[in-house]
Amino acid sequence: MKSLTTELWMEVPARRGVVSLQGEVERLVAESGVREGLVLVNAMHITASVFINDNESGLHHDYEVWLEELAPFDPSPQRYRHNRTGEDNADAHLKRQVMGREVIVAITGGKLHLGPWEHIFYFEFDGNRRKRVLVKIIGE
Amino acid sequence: MKSLTTELWMEVPARRGVVSLQGEVERLVAESGVREGLVLVNAMHITASVFINDNESGLHHDYEVWLEELAPFDPSPQRYRHNRTGEDNADAHLKRQVMGREVIVAITGGKLHLGPWEHIFYFEFDGNRRKRVLVKIIGE
Amino acid sequence: MKSLTTELWMEVPARRGVVSLQGEVERLVAESGVREGLVLVNAMHITASVFINDNESGLHHDYEVWLEELAPFDPSPQRYRHNRTGEDNADAHLKRQVMGREVIVAITGGKLHLGPWEHIFYFEFDGNRRKRVLVKIIGE
Repeated sequence: MKSLTTELWMEVPARRGVVSLQGEVERLVAESGVREGLVLVNAMHITASVFINDNESGLHHDYEVWLEELAPFDPSPQRYRHNRTGEDNADAHLKRQVMGREVIVAITGGKLHLGPWEHIFYFEFDGNRRKRVLVKIIGE
Repeated sequence: MKSLTTELWMEVPARRGVVSLQGEVERLVAESGVREGLVLVNAMHITASVFINDNESGLHHDYEVWLEELAPFDPSPQRYRHNRTGEDNADAHLKRQVMGREVIVAITGGKLHLGPWEHIFYFEFDGNRRKRVLVKIIGE
Repeated sequence: MKSLTTELWMEVPARRGVVSLQGEVERLVAESGVREGLVLVNAMHITASVFINDNESGLHHDYEVWLEELAPFDPSPQRYRHNRTGEDNADAHLKRQVMGREVIVAITGGKLHLGPWEHIFYFEFDGNRRKRVLVKIIGE
């Protein structure tokens, strides 16, 4: 069995934002030499997501608006008990559950086995600082 | 390490619908000869989900109603910016994030290792056309 | 390839509750002898979740309140069709989809490869009975 492990550093210069991980994950799969296997891509922080969806900025805007409706930002200690700890990011912990922590993608014939519009993204919900994404590849 | 890769074609004759994948995934696990491993089952399209829950039509109706409340269908370009691209399916991209893209199921002793009520389904959110599900099995 | 398979029994003495799985999963990874691989941790029941987020009780309270807003408990057969079957737990099947069924965590150098605040939890949405979580480890 072969494996490859890499931590990617992210720094989104805003509270929220979407960043493509696709090119980097493709490069790591090629580097791993794995022909048949799986790649795990996960946020290492609990106020961010890794997800697969369309590479279309209008849709990313729609996610942003929708998540803000489902779990509004509110730094006060009234709405979210988590914010009584001195944090202001309870909403980010909720938004991340909707979008997910991780994706697993098949590797077939040495390449990411994705559908025609599948694209791997990082979604930051509490940015302006350095955070990490883990890429773990296993297979043969 | 053994592996097996199959794309299953789906065509739901309606905008939305739930289809069982259980029998087909069981058959592929048997065919793979893998005794201990993992099977990844994922939608290859970004307006559909693969999920595990109850094989009960009343519950599937409840999901349908609930998702429509959380992310209503609205083809106009006002509510969803994605629909300014000429698409009408922004709601489907949102619904799919709630239900998820993929499941990973353990294979133990040559069989799917599922709880008593776990059942693997495909959830179509923008149907009336052919789409694919990927099944990737790895193990020994 | 090495593998290890264990079912953990849970019994939450309330309808809903959050239980840490972290120590047990760490112990099983050590026992497996796997140095490089993946661990799958999934609820075997369809009214419970396994998720990764903060080990902070205020946040767990926020999840509880938020999920109750998104998918309220209502045992009557009017709101949820699933409850016409004699069940009262349709809300639990919905809540579980928001929080997810499973997590996959990388194993690197014989240890769980987690970010600084990542913690593995079980979320019960229909408790007062014994249920299971599956831990499946594969790697080398």
